[in-house]
Amino acid sequence: MQKARTSASFRPLDLTHIIYDGEENFRRRELVMSRIEAALGDKPGNLPAVYERQDRKSLYHDGLRFGKALLESEIRDKHGFFDRRTHRHTLINASPFGLHSIMFIPTLKLQASPEQLAYWLPLAESGKIIGTYCQTELGHGTFLRGLETTATFDSKTDEFVIHSPTIGSTKYWPGGVGYSTTHAVVMARLVVGRTDHGVHGFMVQLRSLEDFKPLPGIELGDIGMTMGLNSTDNGYAVFNRVRIPRHHMMMRNARFSRDGTYTKAALDKHSYSTMIYTRMCIIHTMAFQLAQAATIAIRYSAVREQGNLHFDPAISNEMTIISYKSQHYRLLTIMSRACAILFASKACENVYEDLISRQAQDDHSTLPYGHITTAALKAWATQTAADGAEDARKCCGGHGYSVLSGMPNLVNDVVPMATLEGENYVMYQQAARYLMKCVSAIQRGQALDASMAYLRDRRDGERCPAHGGGFLNPDVQLSIFRHRAIRLAYDCHVLLDDSVVRDGLSQDAAWNLHMMSLIVAARAHIEYFVLQSFVDQVACVTNPAVHSVLVRLRNLFALSTIESPFSIGALGFFEDAYISSAQLKEIRAHVNRALEALLPEAVGLTDAWAFSDASLQSALGQKDGNVYETLMSWTRQLPFNRACREAGGVDREGFEKYIRPILRAKL
Amino acid sequence: MQKARTSASFRPLDLTHIIYDGEENFRRRELVMSRIEAALGDKPGNLPAVYERQDRKSLYHDGLRFGKALLESEIRDKHGFFDRRTHRHTLINASPFGLHSIMFIPTLKLQASPEQLAYWLPLAESGKIIGTYCQTELGHGTFLRGLETTATFDSKTDEFVIHSPTIGSTKYWPGGVGYSTTHAVVMARLVVGRTDHGVHGFMVQLRSLEDFKPLPGIELGDIGMTMGLNSTDNGYAVFNRVRIPRHHMMMRNARFSRDGTYTKAALDKHSYSTMIYTRMCIIHTMAFQLAQAATIAIRYSAVREQGNLHFDPAISNEMTIISYKSQHYRLLTIMSRACAILFASKACENVYEDLISRQAQDDHSTLPYGHITTAALKAWATQTAADGAEDARKCCGGHGYSVLSGMPNLVNDVVPMATLEGENYVMYQQAARYLMKCVSAIQRGQALDASMAYLRDRRDGERCPAHGGGFLNPDVQLSIFRHRAIRLAYDCHVLLDDSVVRDGLSQDAAWNLHMMSLIVAARAHIEYFVLQSFVDQVACVTNPAVHSVLVRLRNLFALSTIESPFSIGALGFFEDAYISSAQLKEIRAHVNRALEALLPEAVGLTDAWAFSDASLQSALGQKDGNVYETLMSWTRQLPFNRACREAGGVDREGFEKYIRPILRAKL
Repeated sequence: MQKARTSASFRPLDLTHIIYDGEENFRRRELVMSRIEAALGDKPGNLPAVYERQDRKSLYHDGLRFGKALLESEIRDKHGFFDRRTHRHTLINASPFGLHSIMFIPTLKLQASPEQLAYWLPLAESGKIIGTYCQTELGHGTFLRGLETTATFDSKTDEFVIHSPTIGSTKYWPGGVGYSTTHAVVMARLVVGRTDHGVHGFMVQLRSLEDFKPLPGIELGDIGMTMGLNSTDNGYAVFNRVRIPRHHMMMRNARFSRDGTYTKAALDKHSYSTMIYTRMCIIHTMAFQLAQAATIAIRYSAVREQGNLHFDPAISNEMTIISYKSQHYRLLTIMSRACAILFASKACENVYEDLISRQAQDDHSTLPYGHITTAALKAWATQTAADGAEDARKCCGGHGYSVLSGMPNLVNDVVPMATLEGENYVMYQQAARYLMKCVSAIQRGQALDASMAYLRDRRDGERCPAHGGGFLNPDVQLSIFRHRAIRLAYDCHVLLDDSVVRDGLSQDAAWNLHMMSLIVAARAHIEYFVLQSFVDQVACVTNPAVHSVLVRLRNLFALSTIESPFSIGALGFFEDAYISSAQLKEIRAHVNRALEALLPEAVGLTDAWAFSDASLQSALGQKDGNVYETLMSWTRQLPFNRACREAGGVDREGFEKYIRPILRAKL
Repeated sequence: MQKARTSASFRPLDLTHIIYDGEENFRRRELVMSRIEAALGDKPGNLPAVYERQDRKSLYHDGLRFGKALLESEIRDKHGFFDRRTHRHTLINASPFGLHSIMFIPTLKLQASPEQLAYWLPLAESGKIIGTYCQTELGHGTFLRGLETTATFDSKTDEFVIHSPTIGSTKYWPGGVGYSTTHAVVMARLVVGRTDHGVHGFMVQLRSLEDFKPLPGIELGDIGMTMGLNSTDNGYAVFNRVRIPRHHMMMRNARFSRDGTYTKAALDKHSYSTMIYTRMCIIHTMAFQLAQAATIAIRYSAVREQGNLHFDPAISNEMTIISYKSQHYRLLTIMSRACAILFASKACENVYEDLISRQAQDDHSTLPYGHITTAALKAWATQTAADGAEDARKCCGGHGYSVLSGMPNLVNDVVPMATLEGENYVMYQQAARYLMKCVSAIQRGQALDASMAYLRDRRDGERCPAHGGGFLNPDVQLSIFRHRAIRLAYDCHVLLDDSVVRDGLSQDAAWNLHMMSLIVAARAHIEYFVLQSFVDQVACVTNPAVHSVLVRLRNLFALSTIESPFSIGALGFFEDAYISSAQLKEIRAHVNRALEALLPEAVGLTDAWAFSDASLQSALGQKDGNVYETLMSWTRQLPFNRACREAGGVDREGFEKYIRPILRAKL
């Protein structure tokens, strides 16, 4: 491990500062982190607490434990480090109190009237109340208009009656709603007499602040174990005619007066910004979690030996598994993708900040672009991270299947991101719809968002002119991605047109028929954005050693996206014969050279992400490479083994009840 | 659901009989299954036992419980239904006693001398002893020559001394070795004085048959939670100079006499057949598990409503999610792949049976072909099933992340199959090595296994001549797959040759350099085998309604493999411009038509696989489509919720310890 570490040509810390947005920011973060880790008290050598007991309650209590530490640190010091991610780089909703910071407070800021905000925000920010956000129902996901929970106005008492009229209207999934939060913004249909004014947010106190019991008419519970993220209590809530004061309706936009007058909100263009913000948090987190997976797998692969390439039975010396090209290829492309997500995430933040500052001046012109860019990037990043983390897990062989490797938890914490906060296929479709609008605008000679102007550069039938070293030129790489994105967008536009105009399909039917092609086009568009972000930000790196490594990672990312058999949508580069068979061979040769140059940098790259052993919770990913000792020590510390050891090495109950009867049976 | 069910054009039971190898076999299996399910006593409406408690011990005891039922059923009736799969269609190693039937007994049959077999087999078959197979070590996987455990001969006492000399030599992972088995065949290096005769099998009694305590010098334990399959106790074993009689060495092949004379085994060509058998079991299981995932996702998608395609906010009626093309496309291609694995598995069994009957007459000529076919198919099937099951899980949206959907367990039980019994990348490499040998043989004018003769049909530069309805012709589909497989094999051969002859690389270095291309070539070869199996077996189906549905599934499988953006290796159809852009459009149109025709068959197809609700353990996949009632009922039955309900709806410990301090803090 030491040898693998010293072979790096750059100083990892220089890259660390780029990853964590500057030296100062990194240093402050480390300080907070070290305090948190000390408070949580995982000791080196000890089995990490999360692996101690894995029943529902213990996992949840582990979440309460670290969630409390993070929330208190945030309340005390307002550093914002845990607004998005936990100390372990999981999305903050891994904490039972995560939705308090990522959804409840932002929703207040966006939907509460100034008077409401003045009342609720100080309570929330000081932890006097802990809130969550209740939207999803058993029968209804992100499609807001489908929600069934009602808030019926009772003019006699000036109250709303919150009610779950059907089983499908049960609030199901909101984080922390089971047993951890005191309040919720509940999304419900505003009903006045026979009039349904659609879905609005209502502040509902869920539990007594004294004894924490659910308030009358409210049934709360945990939805049980999920694939991952079991440190929080995703919960359910059933409301049986629960009364709240009228002024608990969130009234920044729509208003509802004592006399029952409803004032519809003007379409609030700010309301998208919470959604955009949450998706940006997810994208950012994906970079770190994929890098964690890469860190564990690379470090383990630099230590683990397995077989050799000789087929002579006399030779039994083994090779480190990172020396095998298939492993080497997978590990380094995963690392390059973690970097790609990181740089795209940073670019996305710039788009967002630009949007917010424009919106502050009532310029909403970049909202559609900002919205679809985060939507599509959320889909791309979560898919890339989930596939990459699982592949990194498989790169750890059998041991990657043990929870002690840290990999199962990592993978299972990443995979739901494809579904939550906007299902990926829906996200791609929204982006595709915008793409089609842009193409229509171009064809009608209308104006276009500057960032989409590239679509004007349509060159059907063109062949890629590059060869040799040209493929290492970022402009060439960009032109290849751009060509694919443009061609697929226009192809889809033609498909839709033909189906409607020639075949007489409705717009909806045509859209549904060509949905897969539209999704692929949206993906190609965002992949162009990702590469552009990578290119732009690497160009700004001034440290020559770091720059050189990042250029290689960019080359690997760009070229492997074109040539990898596992690359989703790679067909798009070839189906119009834009890239030839001879060019593909050249591209593959460049990938091989990039891999060779990056091999000595691999462990250095893991160090640059600066994950503590405590945050990785992995016997395989230990910084010192002490894999087998750690794995064996943690195994012996498992509570089930400790209990059986005390009983003489036997699980008595299992033996008496199930095994002895088999051994003794006369069958 | 009823409507979706009755729209099928075929009688599901007719397809069931094909899937389960005949009506008679299916009926016998159902009878055994109903007895097992009755004995295990999951009642409709009740929360399935496996979701009751999810701590390590409870999950393991659930495994002991069903493992006992299966093993006793097998011992009593010798029906063989649980040799490969559990009652839930999981690989039998999900039971703590699974290795007894899938590895221990087959190893005895293969490696024990006739006298040894006469002694041990009756004990094993009557359950007087329960055995496992100990090969994998902490530091060493399937690379047999790397194992470190020693069996040193002590001529004084005529014993072997079994010993774990290093931490890396700890036996780690063997199923059931933790707390469930009495004996093991331990793979260890036979050492006599200073001579190391390599790895052999030794029968070691692990535990007392009386009190079940580990015998002196043996430390046994559980390796803890893994990503899935937690109903078994994958364990570890450390041997500290444990003495066994000399005649406990497995002596069918190599022999070792009282005076220390070692007689080397002739290379035993039969020894591959256990490996082939185990891999075949895995392949077979993958078909059923992927079909289970498809069953749950399709049934749920036929019930679940979400949003609509209209973008008019006034319209709020929702569509069933299977109506969305992206969902429809994913679900039906997953179903087509489950069928593809099934038919390939059946074809593979024929290859195996042919091999065994030849070997019985000392004809080992088809061994290499049989070996690499199962190896590559194991890799392909496990990858396809894992990717498909996870995609099916994602098709269930948020609820697919809840364990109550049955999906997380299903996915996490499938994913390790890519690693165990031959890591997939290694499997593909072995197949690639055989492919390269075949190409060399052709170029040298040497003989070739009949099944590989297709490689002679090299047609570089050819373009696919098909168009229109031609793409539905199975011969055309086969020719497309064949062209890709042949071209990639020869391309790899040229790459290797060039690297060695022109660039002066060693054979090993050249192999390593082009490993990714070789793996892709191996994958293309086996995908040709899979399509061939699908085509052949569908051609034999006599029931016209079933035949027609299977033809559509075959078309969907073949054509989506070519055109899907998610298809691994699809690039291979296009990189030499074999298929043109215009042809791709035609292929996509055929895929759309196949999807449309298969939509009314979707629920019927799930019924054909005949999974009981008890075997699916899914609130979403219930045959009656009663999704939300079941999910809500199971949620309320969760032990954590029951306990909190009794305490007034509060998790008191969590509240007192973690939440109240936040609410009360003055920060």
